Amino acid sequence: MDQEVGGSIPPSCTKIMSKQKKLKPELATGFRDRKGNELILKDRLIEIIKRNFQLYGFEPLETPGFEISENIGKFLSDEDRPMSGIFGFKDEKDWISLRYDLTAPLARYVSENFDNLSKPFKRYQVGSVWRNEKSGPGRYREFTQIDADVVGTKHVSADADMCVLLADTLNKCGLNKDEYLIKVSNRKLIQGLLEELKITNDSKKLTIIRATDKVDRVGISGVKALLGKGRKDKSGDFTKGAGLKENQSEEIINFLKIDNFSKLENLSSNFFFKEGLRELNEIFELTKLSEFSDRIVFSPSIVRGIEYYTGAIYEANLLFKVKNKKGEKVEFGSVGGGGRYDDLVARFTQSIYPATGVSIGLDRLLYAISQKEKEKVKNNNPVVICVFDEKQISEYNKLLTLLRLSNINSEIYYGDGNLKAQMKYADKRNAPAVILYGDNEIKSGTVTIKNLKLGKETSEEAKTREDWTSSKKTQITVNKENLVNEIKKLL
Amino acid sequence: MDQEVGGSIPPSCTKIMSKQKKLKPELATGFRDRKGNELILKDRLIEIIKRNFQLYGFEPLETPGFEISENIGKFLSDEDRPMSGIFGFKDEKDWISLRYDLTAPLARYVSENFDNLSKPFKRYQVGSVWRNEKSGPGRYREFTQIDADVVGTKHVSADADMCVLLADTLNKCGLNKDEYLIKVSNRKLIQGLLEELKITNDSKKLTIIRATDKVDRVGISGVKALLGKGRKDKSGDFTKGAGLKENQSEEIINFLKIDNFSKLENLSSNFFFKEGLRELNEIFELTKLSEFSDRIVFSPSIVRGIEYYTGAIYEANLLFKVKNKKGEKVEFGSVGGGGRYDDLVARFTQSIYPATGVSIGLDRLLYAISQKEKEKVKNNNPVVICVFDEKQISEYNKLLTLLRLSNINSEIYYGDGNLKAQMKYADKRNAPAVILYGDNEIKSGTVTIKNLKLGKETSEEAKTREDWTSSKKTQITVNKENLVNEIKKLL
Repeated sequence: MDQEVGGSIPPSCTKIMSKQKKLKPELATGFRDRKGNELILKDRLIEIIKRNFQLYGFEPLETPGFEISENIGKFLSDEDRPMSGIFGFKDEKDWISLRYDLTAPLARYVSENFDNLSKPFKRYQVGSVWRNEKSGPGRYREFTQIDADVVGTKHVSADADMCVLLADTLNKCGLNKDEYLIKVSNRKLIQGLLEELKITNDSKKLTIIRATDKVDRVGISGVKALLGKGRKDKSGDFTKGAGLKENQSEEIINFLKIDNFSKLENLSSNFFFKEGLRELNEIFELTKLSEFSDRIVFSPSIVRGIEYYTGAIYEANLLFKVKNKKGEKVEFGSVGGGGRYDDLVARFTQSIYPATGVSIGLDRLLYAISQKEKEKVKNNNPVVICVFDEKQISEYNKLLTLLRLSNINSEIYYGDGNLKAQMKYADKRNAPAVILYGDNEIKSGTVTIKNLKLGKETSEEAKTREDWTSSKKTQITVNKENLVNEIKKLL
Repeated sequence: MDQEVGGSIPPSCTKIMSKQKKLKPELATGFRDRKGNELILKDRLIEIIKRNFQLYGFEPLETPGFEISENIGKFLSDEDRPMSGIFGFKDEKDWISLRYDLTAPLARYVSENFDNLSKPFKRYQVGSVWRNEKSGPGRYREFTQIDADVVGTKHVSADADMCVLLADTLNKCGLNKDEYLIKVSNRKLIQGLLEELKITNDSKKLTIIRATDKVDRVGISGVKALLGKGRKDKSGDFTKGAGLKENQSEEIINFLKIDNFSKLENLSSNFFFKEGLRELNEIFELTKLSEFSDRIVFSPSIVRGIEYYTGAIYEANLLFKVKNKKGEKVEFGSVGGGGRYDDLVARFTQSIYPATGVSIGLDRLLYAISQKEKEKVKNNNPVVICVFDEKQISEYNKLLTLLRLSNINSEIYYGDGNLKAQMKYADKRNAPAVILYGDNEIKSGTVTIKNLKLGKETSEEAKTREDWTSSKKTQITVNKENLVNEIKKLL
């Protein structure tokens, strides 16, 4: 490409621009770009998931990125940065914030539009959410969530349907049944245990609940430390514990160790514990009727970090390992989950609108599925028409129109390069073919097609038109009227 | 719906929530929600547009919502609020801003990844953009844009392709050829005129360019005032003018009045003016070869408000009237446009990377197309299985699995309502049918299907099961194994 265009830029513009010092092109910290086939796959996953959510009776909703800060509250589990976590912005009237999930805005929407909504109200939403957290490897401050929620039902059958929906969605995204598991529990179990242990302080409860959520990361011994005096991590950082007595933390650890649903029964006779148990029983009775009966199982260590859950909680876990940035195979863990949050809408009204819902972390799911590599993405790249002579641009355009009318992705090379540069461009674009339409071809009413899918030669090897035409295997010359058919064969 | 669930909420949670005062559920100013069929149509338009952009050889890119403020600069035409227009946020290191368009982030991306990109680089992007402007009726602070750009080509054939792409895209979105027009001009024309008129002050130039952009809104006389001393609008607000002499503004007005491309030739002999003319000639020669030759025309009043354009500019206008909020039929105007911006990438480097691109305002296009109403959206709403008896929920679930395995959108009613409430729910959801599966049906292995598409009776009229079963016309009872086929017929 010729990077000098000189005379074709009005000098006044150039002057305006050159006054400024040159900027350093870089992303804001904690954000990233995506491109190419990853996005094609992302679009396909979104389409599959939306379709499946519709199949389960959910209708679409789109709320804006910003909400009035007070209305969405702050229910994140980010203890380390209690005052942040959210991108807030002082508006003319209120403080407004970028949403950190799709659930809190749903509560606002339902309250605002209650009279016009079906009861119950079922919606799905796809959207970006933002968290003003410390970013780290693989941890970004903007990501895509896809949620499905039912507002206005206390029935456990809705929770059961959510678990089936999660399993079915992962299945339809291309995962085999042995590659995922939906783990289910109920917040009432731990609430019941806490009541039995006479732990009544709200902030202490929250500390305990969040400690139990960390079995996967810090192990049972780590959780035990967090329930007691506290825990020092590898880096030497100390996290203060909940300060439970030995017998209290023992009881909670016993609960977390339970590996079989039937063993729960004798653990506590507390009212809430029993109710949680009854609800779980009902859920499993219903999920057993689905295709995914053996994919939906009890797990006591599922707690979910977010504060607003009140009943059943569920989490979708992937069972295969994926490579991290260092190339090591690691456990992947959760790609989504959710639960019952019966009090969130009640922040706006005196009445209680019980609700339950599920959220899929699309970026994580995309990462895992693209790693599996069985999801081959179709080549969407264009056939490139080479430019031999700018004066023939009309002739090239006629071919282009033919191809595009036949729904074949195609373009004329826009740059200034010679044939070598054009072949390099086609390589870089991963073009399936290039079209050579020089003076000879134009005179004889033919077109030469070079199949780049077949061709192993790199563009570097060929220096001239003659080199290219000599590689007969991958190159054919056909009558112009056969162009479209030949390209279709090749694709 | 029973809004009291009492005992099933752990008291501690209820306590946490009820401490807070009740919030007023409302949207942040200048934002909005979307729902239902509007979103189904939006998804379909996005899919059509993406597909067409791929057809023209563009590959997908996704950049984050935030950019480092300095990197995206500020090229908006919002004179009224010079210090705002953008949502900025003080980050740990830099000020970061939500993007106000998709072009400025593209310049950052291309500079950052230059070595790895094809030359030229062609990408499309769909995304939200945010403008911190004063909101008004129909004017929101968050909207969706779909852009296609080529970076690294000075060739006018790329501009011509953009015009064809715009026309083709509107066509594929369902507009007839007499319903849109792509208006084309070139910034170099006005730049040339200004040079000839010896107007050299940069800010004065910008004032003049922005005045000429307002022909549609304030008419020729309004523009004349803005070129001279200034203009007082209906509300009495005065906008200071560019302060041109009579003969200077006359020259510019003469240019704006030109209604035929061939009349441009004799208007000026300035170098840039002539170059702009030559480029336009080349564009129209190429667009004439496309299917959309008569849809792509010259218009001097097209200026485009954004500062960074340097050459060809184009705008997609709808020619049919749409209803505004008051129900009045009004001209709709632009649904997108773009142009050549040869200096934007040069903010980051010494080299010049000439570029051209197009942006479609999806929300405006969606509004116009949904008003045309010829775009009927398929009913995606679920078949509803009524609940007669909670104890039979397993039986209902078996039907549900049958329907969903056959790809029929369906659900079991989740609420607490009686049959009347359930029919009301199905009505509200615009369900195509409800399924009645009571004790009699279960015993005899049959299912009753009520066709709501046919039925004219409203749910209010029917009080009991007997009322419903008596309306024979819209209701059939079939063997369970015929359920799926009967529903498919009905859909």
